[in-house]
Amino acid sequence: MKKLVNDPATVVADALRGVAAAHPELRVDHGNRIVYRGDAPVAGKVGLVSGGGSGHEPLHAGFVGPGMLDAACAGEVFTSPVPDQIVAATTAVDGGAGVLHIVKNYTGDVLNFEMAAEIAAAETGVQVAAVVTDDDVAVQDSLYTAGRRGVGVTVLLEKIAGAAAEQGRGLDEVAEVARRVNGNGRSMGLALTSCTVPAAGRPTFQLADDEIEVGIGIHGEPGRHRRPMAPARELAAQLVEPVLADLDFTGGDGVICFLNGMGGTPLIELYLMFAEVRALLDAAGVRVARSLVGPYITSLEMAGCSLTLLRADDELIRLWDAPVRTPALRWGV
Amino acid sequence: MKKLVNDPATVVADALRGVAAAHPELRVDHGNRIVYRGDAPVAGKVGLVSGGGSGHEPLHAGFVGPGMLDAACAGEVFTSPVPDQIVAATTAVDGGAGVLHIVKNYTGDVLNFEMAAEIAAAETGVQVAAVVTDDDVAVQDSLYTAGRRGVGVTVLLEKIAGAAAEQGRGLDEVAEVARRVNGNGRSMGLALTSCTVPAAGRPTFQLADDEIEVGIGIHGEPGRHRRPMAPARELAAQLVEPVLADLDFTGGDGVICFLNGMGGTPLIELYLMFAEVRALLDAAGVRVARSLVGPYITSLEMAGCSLTLLRADDELIRLWDAPVRTPALRWGV
Repeated sequence: MKKLVNDPATVVADALRGVAAAHPELRVDHGNRIVYRGDAPVAGKVGLVSGGGSGHEPLHAGFVGPGMLDAACAGEVFTSPVPDQIVAATTAVDGGAGVLHIVKNYTGDVLNFEMAAEIAAAETGVQVAAVVTDDDVAVQDSLYTAGRRGVGVTVLLEKIAGAAAEQGRGLDEVAEVARRVNGNGRSMGLALTSCTVPAAGRPTFQLADDEIEVGIGIHGEPGRHRRPMAPARELAAQLVEPVLADLDFTGGDGVICFLNGMGGTPLIELYLMFAEVRALLDAAGVRVARSLVGPYITSLEMAGCSLTLLRADDELIRLWDAPVRTPALRWGV
Repeated sequence: MKKLVNDPATVVADALRGVAAAHPELRVDHGNRIVYRGDAPVAGKVGLVSGGGSGHEPLHAGFVGPGMLDAACAGEVFTSPVPDQIVAATTAVDGGAGVLHIVKNYTGDVLNFEMAAEIAAAETGVQVAAVVTDDDVAVQDSLYTAGRRGVGVTVLLEKIAGAAAEQGRGLDEVAEVARRVNGNGRSMGLALTSCTVPAAGRPTFQLADDEIEVGIGIHGEPGRHRRPMAPARELAAQLVEPVLADLDFTGGDGVICFLNGMGGTPLIELYLMFAEVRALLDAAGVRVARSLVGPYITSLEMAGCSLTLLRADDELIRLWDAPVRTPALRWGV
């Protein structure tokens, strides 16, 4: 294992020191491993809390700031944050309008966020709603998941729900927007290589030199099948077809098309794949209204990519376009 | 070689189709492989043209847009663009105030930009000035370079000179700001792995499992030495010390501190390295005024990072902070 780390046991704490140093507009609670927007709690605004295992950066800490998350709880690499962290974040960002938990559908995350919501409500009376993302069409049930896994739609949801909260909408309405995003989003990924969890010290799985895994999970969970490496346009079809087969993306509304890098794949390859994806969507009569290309929900240094499509009506597009100021997504301010 | 490509011979053209599809606010000349800001030429504004070998994305096409470059010329992977491309870009972005060429110091790039400047001036009378970046303190002369190599400072320079041009300053003044950035910037990088040029199909060089190369070039050119892998804080010192030894960064002015990822290193490691770099700079009495962490001048999927420090007075900081709207750097708009 060759990684820029000091000690596998301190990776998350050490990286959070870097986040704090690079982003003075954020506030980092190093003891609890929580990244806050600097002005949290914002009075009268619904607070948005997300979090999950580390190793998916910039998700979630890179999405903290005005127009997106109020707090992100960092677990150990590929490990859920604990309830105490989530309780601390929830009570800290409550500006009197309640708090929305945004949770990727992994068993540990779901349980710990549920437990934290109960504790926070009991201890401080804060109103908590939750949305669980489960957009990965690859497989039903998985190593750490009952049902579908939550992946790329989480990024789009955090942006869009964040904009709704910033507008001053109430908790029920922000939660409804968030659920609408999850319900209208689908994803599918593929891996060219494994990644190595620092504490494990060796690759999570093995792929042959000419082999890829289609439907990979963001922790290296098995996908649908392994197949020989192929040209990008064939691989693009392996992402586009299952997504389109699962939900109708044609028709009046456009889509937000998000081609995500898994961490180790360079941008030139992501743009190349995006061209192939767009050609397939054009041929299928899917209108792309907005595009996002880059590594936003990663799996350490895994090589590969994932596609997320979100059927987005005018309201969701307006919320997507609204100003945002975070380390990883920023526009309008 | 396992890469998301169709054919090694068409990588650059295929990726530019993706850039065009993802960024409708830009204009792509596919024949000449030039990416333009959509409203070029901007009347009365100095035009900024850069370019170089592909494989360093987002540099340079990802920095095209208001507040930064007017055009980027894409060469083949790790190969200079040809004079015809640069002539086309130069004449297309001339809004009557002249054009600044921003050139990284590699022999092919320097020659081809010089030739293009002469042709453009002779054919259309456009006034061209040029700035050559040579900020890499690792080595004097290299595989493709006489003198020092141009690396990370190019990113900061394109942003700062772009802001100066956007303010309506004249060609001489924009060129002077650009040279001031280069003169006050220094960089040093290290690699944990090689990268593979698609057309070559095999890694450019070999490193043992426990070995890194300190002072690596962005095309895999040899650095200062190879050494055993070590904890991040030791490696941070290998970047900080040679940079501080080359130029005094203490004193009244602050620095812009840019920790760059080489392409294959995940963000969690970059933030971890940034924390170590910041601790060393604090100890050395260097005041960090602004920070940038992420993969902005990459070497395909190479794992590793580089540090760039820029001694920045108030004017350079104001130009850095000015609005910018490009695929890879965006704020204020």
